[in-house]
Amino acid sequence: MIVVMDSGAGEEEIGEVEKRIKSFGYDVHRSNGVNCTILGAIGYPREDVRDALEVMPSVEKVVLVSHPFMLVSREFKKDKTAFKVGEVEIGGEKIVLMAGPCAVEGRESYLQAAEAVKKGGADILRGGAYKPRTSPYSFQGLEEEGLKIMAEAREMTGLPIITEVLDQHSIEIVVRYADIIQVGTRNMQNFKLLRELGQINKPVLIKRGMSATIEEWLMAAEYLLSSGNYQVILCERGIRTFETYTRYTMDISAIPIVKELSHLPVFVDPSHGTGKWKWVPSMSLAAVAAGADGLLVEVHPSPKEALCDGPQSLVPEKYSQMIGSLRGVAQIIGRTL
Amino acid sequence: MIVVMDSGAGEEEIGEVEKRIKSFGYDVHRSNGVNCTILGAIGYPREDVRDALEVMPSVEKVVLVSHPFMLVSREFKKDKTAFKVGEVEIGGEKIVLMAGPCAVEGRESYLQAAEAVKKGGADILRGGAYKPRTSPYSFQGLEEEGLKIMAEAREMTGLPIITEVLDQHSIEIVVRYADIIQVGTRNMQNFKLLRELGQINKPVLIKRGMSATIEEWLMAAEYLLSSGNYQVILCERGIRTFETYTRYTMDISAIPIVKELSHLPVFVDPSHGTGKWKWVPSMSLAAVAAGADGLLVEVHPSPKEALCDGPQSLVPEKYSQMIGSLRGVAQIIGRTL
Amino acid sequence: MIVVMDSGAGEEEIGEVEKRIKSFGYDVHRSNGVNCTILGAIGYPREDVRDALEVMPSVEKVVLVSHPFMLVSREFKKDKTAFKVGEVEIGGEKIVLMAGPCAVEGRESYLQAAEAVKKGGADILRGGAYKPRTSPYSFQGLEEEGLKIMAEAREMTGLPIITEVLDQHSIEIVVRYADIIQVGTRNMQNFKLLRELGQINKPVLIKRGMSATIEEWLMAAEYLLSSGNYQVILCERGIRTFETYTRYTMDISAIPIVKELSHLPVFVDPSHGTGKWKWVPSMSLAAVAAGADGLLVEVHPSPKEALCDGPQSLVPEKYSQMIGSLRGVAQIIGRTL
Amino acid sequence: MIVVMDSGAGEEEIGEVEKRIKSFGYDVHRSNGVNCTILGAIGYPREDVRDALEVMPSVEKVVLVSHPFMLVSREFKKDKTAFKVGEVEIGGEKIVLMAGPCAVEGRESYLQAAEAVKKGGADILRGGAYKPRTSPYSFQGLEEEGLKIMAEAREMTGLPIITEVLDQHSIEIVVRYADIIQVGTRNMQNFKLLRELGQINKPVLIKRGMSATIEEWLMAAEYLLSSGNYQVILCERGIRTFETYTRYTMDISAIPIVKELSHLPVFVDPSHGTGKWKWVPSMSLAAVAAGADGLLVEVHPSPKEALCDGPQSLVPEKYSQMIGSLRGVAQIIGRTL
Repeated sequence: MIVVMDSGAGEEEIGEVEKRIKSFGYDVHRSNGVNCTILGAIGYPREDVRDALEVMPSVEKVVLVSHPFMLVSREFKKDKTAFKVGEVEIGGEKIVLMAGPCAVEGRESYLQAAEAVKKGGADILRGGAYKPRTSPYSFQGLEEEGLKIMAEAREMTGLPIITEVLDQHSIEIVVRYADIIQVGTRNMQNFKLLRELGQINKPVLIKRGMSATIEEWLMAAEYLLSSGNYQVILCERGIRTFETYTRYTMDISAIPIVKELSHLPVFVDPSHGTGKWKWVPSMSLAAVAAGADGLLVEVHPSPKEALCDGPQSLVPEKYSQMIGSLRGVAQIIGRTL
Repeated sequence: MIVVMDSGAGEEEIGEVEKRIKSFGYDVHRSNGVNCTILGAIGYPREDVRDALEVMPSVEKVVLVSHPFMLVSREFKKDKTAFKVGEVEIGGEKIVLMAGPCAVEGRESYLQAAEAVKKGGADILRGGAYKPRTSPYSFQGLEEEGLKIMAEAREMTGLPIITEVLDQHSIEIVVRYADIIQVGTRNMQNFKLLRELGQINKPVLIKRGMSATIEEWLMAAEYLLSSGNYQVILCERGIRTFETYTRYTMDISAIPIVKELSHLPVFVDPSHGTGKWKWVPSMSLAAVAAGADGLLVEVHPSPKEALCDGPQSLVPEKYSQMIGSLRGVAQIIGRTL
Repeated sequence: MIVVMDSGAGEEEIGEVEKRIKSFGYDVHRSNGVNCTILGAIGYPREDVRDALEVMPSVEKVVLVSHPFMLVSREFKKDKTAFKVGEVEIGGEKIVLMAGPCAVEGRESYLQAAEAVKKGGADILRGGAYKPRTSPYSFQGLEEEGLKIMAEAREMTGLPIITEVLDQHSIEIVVRYADIIQVGTRNMQNFKLLRELGQINKPVLIKRGMSATIEEWLMAAEYLLSSGNYQVILCERGIRTFETYTRYTMDISAIPIVKELSHLPVFVDPSHGTGKWKWVPSMSLAAVAAGADGLLVEVHPSPKEALCDGPQSLVPEKYSQMIGSLRGVAQIIGRTL
Repeated sequence: MIVVMDSGAGEEEIGEVEKRIKSFGYDVHRSNGVNCTILGAIGYPREDVRDALEVMPSVEKVVLVSHPFMLVSREFKKDKTAFKVGEVEIGGEKIVLMAGPCAVEGRESYLQAAEAVKKGGADILRGGAYKPRTSPYSFQGLEEEGLKIMAEAREMTGLPIITEVLDQHSIEIVVRYADIIQVGTRNMQNFKLLRELGQINKPVLIKRGMSATIEEWLMAAEYLLSSGNYQVILCERGIRTFETYTRYTMDISAIPIVKELSHLPVFVDPSHGTGKWKWVPSMSLAAVAAGADGLLVEVHPSPKEALCDGPQSLVPEKYSQMIGSLRGVAQIIGRTL
């Protein structure tokens, strides 16, 4: 249930309402808006509790939300969530570009890619040190060594870095190096991992499960918020359908829908979604046109030599070209890039 | 197989090659390009036939295409297909807007809608006289009376009209009134209907089947072309997936893919794809950004009174607003609107 | 709405209720059960009409059904529908086997197949004279000649024949020859075709659309019943999913569900569903175990020479072997075969 | 690559071949069959290595498998895998029944359920102590207390127990109590978890991911085998499709396919697959008819009071009734139960 306080309610009154909510066995989350405070009462909605809260003088109204997510919802927080990672604002007016190779494969090649990506126009560097691979016999990432290389690239370029965490054991080490932690599509419902990431103080980008409904995806984010981490980015990356011409089917319509349901920033990964670099520019344009707050793009200076996902990586020149058009579309819809 | 003639080949030489192709039991389709003529040899590809044709002096090369479609392919016709419907060019530089109510429900309301749509900025008027309905008890369309009303609207607005044909029996009457014939998603593999529409001399817009792969969709168009009708528009309208928040999942990535595989113009119907008017502007922008040649949009002056698909219809004001942004995006990617 | 009459209601009283229903603008369908008569009032359910009908002395109760189908529902007709085709009872205790080649490819080969199938243990002969093919360049069937060959096979074996009708133009000719008319997966929502088949007096087997929900499938059958044809067989044949190891994914759970929702017999086509003969026996056993009333199986004496769907055809020996196990399973669940 | 040794090859010769394989940089897994030994050379297949190995006198042949899985394949191990859990043989002639409530909700209720399930005819007790829940606000399981209750139920009934492990941190504790470890659908591609479970010496049942292809599922099992654990059970539990009448669509055809591709036992979970208890008996019969080696069924003495998945739980009486029919079907296909 969502309790909207009167705009004039002071700390004391808010505290009283919080106490009352807890007395019914609910947990309380608080959101301080510009004009009013909103309290999330976590637990099964009950009409008698609503009535009991609504008669309190400092309460404006109590909403029994019809969907199962609460803290990620627009009802709980009207304004878009925005936060800073270094100098970069996520969820603001400017559309944010995260780019780089799929995996960190070696020091030299990664630093070279980082340089190229920076020059091409990225805000944040991406790269995988721990890779989820369908086959146990495929390259699984350089692990901590990869993280160190990424840190060096950050030093060199000044760009913050994002990388994936695969499991609980490596959370500590990944958090030590990375500026943003990525949760992959196969881990979207790894609930224990989410709970632990809800307790770190770095932003988390959570990819949509390849067969997750929009509601399940928002519920996964709810795990993060309800554990205490409000710096969450949602990332659409394609869903599994009968069409196999593309690796996945990008659900571009999820962008306006999620932005309507939730206050969290929504990113799009057109590289994994399509599986081929040549469709990445069109889908990037489509994503920005549809309202995405940012993109996660694979860029690799020599895709043919990539150990992982080469066919879906843009070369830096194509990446730079694409940015010009993206900037134009951003302006049309009242954003910058 | 596709036979590319020498650029200097004259009618006589082309005729000889055609005769030779037929002698092997193939049908021949001809495409006259700016620089050279291309002949499509319809039938199972055979290497010995390729060799026999390639030794002919006026033949430049013979291509054994790896996909099952031929006449719709870029190998058969390199340049984009464009054709005129009245004053409107389909497949040209300008992005074409087809708009109007889902169904023709009455004279007055349709004429009013047509007026509004024209004012809002449409190139072509849409409307359904024969409606495919899941339930036998739902409104099935005004049939010929609906067509007459659409013809009156054309008279009044000067805009060409597009409407759906549901079955073989009504082809003749629909063709008499309409400027473009629409084949719906449920009829995409109604092969007998396609063969007959391949023999009319009006353009056909063929919607993608809701569970058709891109290849099957192009094969359906191949039925039209191989029966003689080259004025074909492909229209993406959403595919059926596990996600039910939207009515269908729009496959925006199909746009760049089909434009790469085929020379035919590609349109998008965001109204049926999403099922809700409020997501139509975002998806229209995304479609144009991804390279669509046109849109098919439901617009209704009073959606709440619509007998069919009201929830997915834009009101004229929203439609006009959307066009402003569409125009901006079109310019960014080198098109007009 | 469904109007259940008192068990003692006579013709006169039933007639009065029918008249009253019609006075509200509804059509009436009648189902004579063993103990009572049920009237289907076709049109949008209205509570005031229900009330007006319920006060009539011969009416036991009026049900506002919550699903959109009515005549096909168990509420309208409690007992399973069963009917005879020649000597064969469809929908009775005995599980019915329809078998034969996918397409009629020639007189000799078809008669040979028919003989083999009969010997193997089939109740009804299948075969395609009009074939829906993805490619316009594939074999499209022998048309009327194929029907004549099938009729000859019927003469020879004494087995009734089932064949597919592809379009409205050929309904008349197909009905002239066939004992059961098949509507294919791509035509499940060819509503005009369904309406016309609702007016013939031969049974219709309607395959589930490859992307049709169970509800849409029942609505397609509703088109047939509401047009007057109550001899309808539903046939599950696999749905389109992300899994491509099989040609389609057989939805075996649809069997118990449809039998719960509807009184119509439910058949299964494991040949098209799996796309490979070697999985046909397992899936046939599964279908019968789950409650199917019959099977539609492709059997071909020399699958390698088949012009159409050879890889999914059983040879007659495998077919006969399978029947032994099927008989055992049938007995376990209280059926015969 | 798979190296088939001569039937007369002794330890020394096998050792030499192993050494040679390793000299090319491959890992070696060994499978001792009745007639011959098979060596799996793990790594990318190379033709030159095949040739080098095939000339060795004790090598019969070297197979370059075309699918990416190897240790789970029939090429690597021809005979069905069977192993014992207590007195129960998994993968043998007898079909194995695992039954019990979805979650352990309390001591008394679980012990009562265990008693009922045993009486009804189960071989193994199921129950969840750690529950993966879409919502962070739902009941998440009793954790270790639940495991203790399950251990008590094992004591009482003499039946081995199976329960799910959700994350790496709880592997140790779950392994301490359980006889079989279950990996849920959402963890099928939690590769780190799989690697760790590959190192325990208890059997692992791995459910198919709800959107996993058959190949991806077998690759997940390959993670377990290649890490050292060969006691693996595959469990089909329904895939996500457009049909939402059932919770998931059970892919019954996966049973014969996986049994053809792999030597591992295949189980089916009809409770999660359908989501409703009333369809469980039909689907259980179908699964056994199609060749399943066992079932995982939810049984709860009072489903209405269940905290988790009550609607899909059978009451013990229905469960017992079902077993009678299952036994009959098992006999028909040459199995026992």
